[in-house]
Amino acid sequence: MWILRINMTDLSYRLEELPSAYKNLAGRAMTSTLVSEEVPPLCHPLGPHNKLVFSPGIVTGTTAPTSSRISVGAKSPLTGGIKESNAGSSWGRDIARMQIKALVVEGKPADKKMFHGVSVTWDVAAGKPKVEFFDATEYTKKDLYKVFPKLYKRFGKKISIAGCGMVGEHGYGNAGVVFNDLAKRPSRYSGRGGLGSVMGSKSLKFIVLNANGAPGVEIADKVLFEEGRKKMLEALQTHDITKPKGALNTYGTAVLINILNEAGGLPTRNFSSGRFEGAAKIAGEAIFEGNKQRVGKEVYNHACSPGCTIKCSNTWYNVNGSKRASCVEYESDWALGANCGIDNLDDIATMIHLCNAYGLDTIETGVTIAVAMEGGVIPFGDSKGAIRLIKEMGKGSALGRALGGGTGFAGKAFGVVRVPAVKGQGMPAYEPRAVKGIGITYATSTMGADHTAGYTIAPEILGVSGKQDPLTPEGKAALSRAFQAATAFIDSTGHCLFIAFAILDIAAGFQGMIDECNGVLGTKWTANDVNAYGAEVLKKERAFNEAAGLGKELDRVPEFMTIEQLPPHNHVFDVPEKALDSVYGEM
Amino acid sequence: MWILRINMTDLSYRLEELPSAYKNLAGRAMTSTLVSEEVPPLCHPLGPHNKLVFSPGIVTGTTAPTSSRISVGAKSPLTGGIKESNAGSSWGRDIARMQIKALVVEGKPADKKMFHGVSVTWDVAAGKPKVEFFDATEYTKKDLYKVFPKLYKRFGKKISIAGCGMVGEHGYGNAGVVFNDLAKRPSRYSGRGGLGSVMGSKSLKFIVLNANGAPGVEIADKVLFEEGRKKMLEALQTHDITKPKGALNTYGTAVLINILNEAGGLPTRNFSSGRFEGAAKIAGEAIFEGNKQRVGKEVYNHACSPGCTIKCSNTWYNVNGSKRASCVEYESDWALGANCGIDNLDDIATMIHLCNAYGLDTIETGVTIAVAMEGGVIPFGDSKGAIRLIKEMGKGSALGRALGGGTGFAGKAFGVVRVPAVKGQGMPAYEPRAVKGIGITYATSTMGADHTAGYTIAPEILGVSGKQDPLTPEGKAALSRAFQAATAFIDSTGHCLFIAFAILDIAAGFQGMIDECNGVLGTKWTANDVNAYGAEVLKKERAFNEAAGLGKELDRVPEFMTIEQLPPHNHVFDVPEKALDSVYGEM
Repeated sequence: MWILRINMTDLSYRLEELPSAYKNLAGRAMTSTLVSEEVPPLCHPLGPHNKLVFSPGIVTGTTAPTSSRISVGAKSPLTGGIKESNAGSSWGRDIARMQIKALVVEGKPADKKMFHGVSVTWDVAAGKPKVEFFDATEYTKKDLYKVFPKLYKRFGKKISIAGCGMVGEHGYGNAGVVFNDLAKRPSRYSGRGGLGSVMGSKSLKFIVLNANGAPGVEIADKVLFEEGRKKMLEALQTHDITKPKGALNTYGTAVLINILNEAGGLPTRNFSSGRFEGAAKIAGEAIFEGNKQRVGKEVYNHACSPGCTIKCSNTWYNVNGSKRASCVEYESDWALGANCGIDNLDDIATMIHLCNAYGLDTIETGVTIAVAMEGGVIPFGDSKGAIRLIKEMGKGSALGRALGGGTGFAGKAFGVVRVPAVKGQGMPAYEPRAVKGIGITYATSTMGADHTAGYTIAPEILGVSGKQDPLTPEGKAALSRAFQAATAFIDSTGHCLFIAFAILDIAAGFQGMIDECNGVLGTKWTANDVNAYGAEVLKKERAFNEAAGLGKELDRVPEFMTIEQLPPHNHVFDVPEKALDSVYGEM
Repeated sequence: MWILRINMTDLSYRLEELPSAYKNLAGRAMTSTLVSEEVPPLCHPLGPHNKLVFSPGIVTGTTAPTSSRISVGAKSPLTGGIKESNAGSSWGRDIARMQIKALVVEGKPADKKMFHGVSVTWDVAAGKPKVEFFDATEYTKKDLYKVFPKLYKRFGKKISIAGCGMVGEHGYGNAGVVFNDLAKRPSRYSGRGGLGSVMGSKSLKFIVLNANGAPGVEIADKVLFEEGRKKMLEALQTHDITKPKGALNTYGTAVLINILNEAGGLPTRNFSSGRFEGAAKIAGEAIFEGNKQRVGKEVYNHACSPGCTIKCSNTWYNVNGSKRASCVEYESDWALGANCGIDNLDDIATMIHLCNAYGLDTIETGVTIAVAMEGGVIPFGDSKGAIRLIKEMGKGSALGRALGGGTGFAGKAFGVVRVPAVKGQGMPAYEPRAVKGIGITYATSTMGADHTAGYTIAPEILGVSGKQDPLTPEGKAALSRAFQAATAFIDSTGHCLFIAFAILDIAAGFQGMIDECNGVLGTKWTANDVNAYGAEVLKKERAFNEAAGLGKELDRVPEFMTIEQLPPHNHVFDVPEKALDSVYGEM
């Protein structure tokens, strides 16, 4: 097992044996450990001392269902703190199969004009990975949908691709790291926190993997692993949310549009209401029905990555039955839809496609555009104007740059006071004033405003693991703390966070996850151990952030949410500061 | 003695008797106390809970020489921390004469379309100030040089004016509060930290004062005050830097260009060298000689505000002998000149004039433009391009907005790594790598990078109060600490910081400052007391910043200065973090 270090200063690489102390680290635990230990907290995120770390999860590359996540970590250009953002892609599987536990990109070249690519293949004779650099300048400043086919043509159909889009070349705070989906498209993203610009700052355009001949993941206890895998699969296949033709497989994540709208927690027109009158027109149900009409039959969703049994990735089709965009996720649909006052699914899909083509995080893009709308740049509801703004971001025009820095940045550019961001990162699709627990997660997460860091929506809105009143702040700090720790572990296993629905409700599923990990690693973890593991990851991240100047004073939602009531419930965000401070204070 | 509160939410005002606890507070001590006590540290700087506080110094409005400073304070949109920025203007004298110790602007109107003005006059019959509001919308979006004459026409020649320019209306982090000079021009600025945007965010365009009939400043011990005034005057009139036809009166502050260039500490082309080959062409000597040629005789400088005996404000003349711009200060000359690789005095003067016309801080503007040059927006040395960028800032175009947020902001917009800013505020005209003490001040000041917060240049470069080696970090933390505390007191007296040259070298001058203050207030302060007073102000500011999330981790110069050697001395910034932390840690 290896740590592969790519040095962009002199285009060299070094293959290190995985130190025994890192043996049980993977995914987020690995990226956050390496960033904590090796990146100076006060370095410039786009400077030579930042490092971009890729790490597959503990069970990634195995047959464990829904586990092909790849974690990407660095100091974030968006928040100034530590960042881990993970995506589902064959890339995670392939790097895991080459037994590379971490790929660390370091340094940066003096010459900024040339961009480079890195190819990692398995050298069967040598029994280890082989690294080659190639000139990738020809792929810069281009639509990723046009570039990906060229890479497949050049390196073969079996490759997996990680890269940055043109906005990563521009250095935006809102540039993701792109990965291929199963249809070879640039549609899977470690989107949040500007990691694409860390890649771009190092003049690294693509990392192309071909795991052909690689040995695969070592499994210490195959029997135990298999037991765990079966429990996990059973849980996923039976839970209403994750089962075949269940909620996610049928309607995609956008099934949440109507649910959140009903709950009064769907942020609308830059977080000025929790209800959007056009919600039904952009909901998962509308996507399913619209596709049925346009394609002429029911279309169920597909997997984003190998081995996923949930299959929540949708496609939105044109009237003529051709594909318009994939994937119209809840967050993207909401950010570019309800939050901008836009109810036109075709235009939303176009915007998502453009974000994928350019390398933009769809959440940050939508939340930023809504702030620009509030600042008078274009009116709410102007979908053609919003498309134009995204194109400006792609071009790197002055307007694009005023927006590309993300939500907090655009708020400053346009003198906007109502800026829904924490630590500069735009808030996702759940209103803190209507769903208090998720607001606590946004405020306190080491990642900036991030729903996936502690998805209390499960109990607060969906009734998963019991139903909790979303409007009360009572007990929510403890809830967020527990979810954040559990999530940090799940993010380290390589499983998609969506397994949480099944394993929170089905105890055997939860045990299955632990068994899988114990099976791979040869550990004897209990439920307590995995929570402690997650808490340990959070503490490392927190310490990095504090050293980077992001202390607990910044663990707050923006002021306007504490003084402005949100319709329809007319609540402010009323979680006491003491409760917010207790999330990490009592961890 | 009064605190005058202007409520912009409902256009009302309240005149409060000065609380006895505030009796000895004035200038920076007053603004920082009121901001600390009344502004929530985490409020949005442009939101309703920020307050803009104006306060004249202890001796402002008296006959004490060079003491017409007015402090302006608020939470800064640029740094996110507390801000005090002071200017010399008759406005300070006039508000002091009306016995208003603090004017506090609070709230903001719901309707953003209208801008308002406030007129404060002295009601002789009632024996107190009188406040009237007027519609100032007609004065918005206009060159301040065109607007000021209209105000004088409307309100009479005896008025003093405070206001914000069009960029304060835009909400930029780089918008100053403007004051009139003695020639009724909009050329005196509380420039730093975006205070003009705090004013603009409250839809307040101007505060017009007419002190006619006002009682003047109460002086508790006139004999003592007069003694102090004489000592101060004597010191100012005899010190080589401050005396009539001395360095400042002859060459203006730009006399420093050649001195710093010689010392290798004149930041050039975005802080990439400490020497500028064009220095002589933009130096104070060149201004003096150029004017002599253009006007046909020697032109000595004028006072920026009533009662100043130093008279360092210059004018740069056109070839035909007409006035081109006032004032070409060292900082402005450097920021828009050497730091941008520009050596054309006419173009630099044009840029300064435009900054004054729009309401921009010249330092932040020049440092921002140099960062944009580094980011490839225009080449270094392109003075016509730089003029164009300033015009874009005025217009509020997308490009202008990408620049208007200031140095740190523009660095993010254009993906620049070499960004000379601390806490988002651009560094002034002294290179931290060549002058270590001033670097410590930049890093640790509560204000962000600010030379006036602890001007160690006096001993490190000018040999005032003894000469210290600028290149050594030894002893400089203590030096910066002492200077920061002394400065916080001077900023509270209403004296211009330039008295420091004289009072540091001439002990009687220092005693004169204390005598003046004791004379006005009836206190019995010693030198120890005034240092403690200054330290107390700093502690309040520091506590505000910590609560606002600006902790000691951010008391650092940017990373590039710690790793990149600066020609000609080839030093990095080598002050240990421990020394930086000791500045406030051991206060």
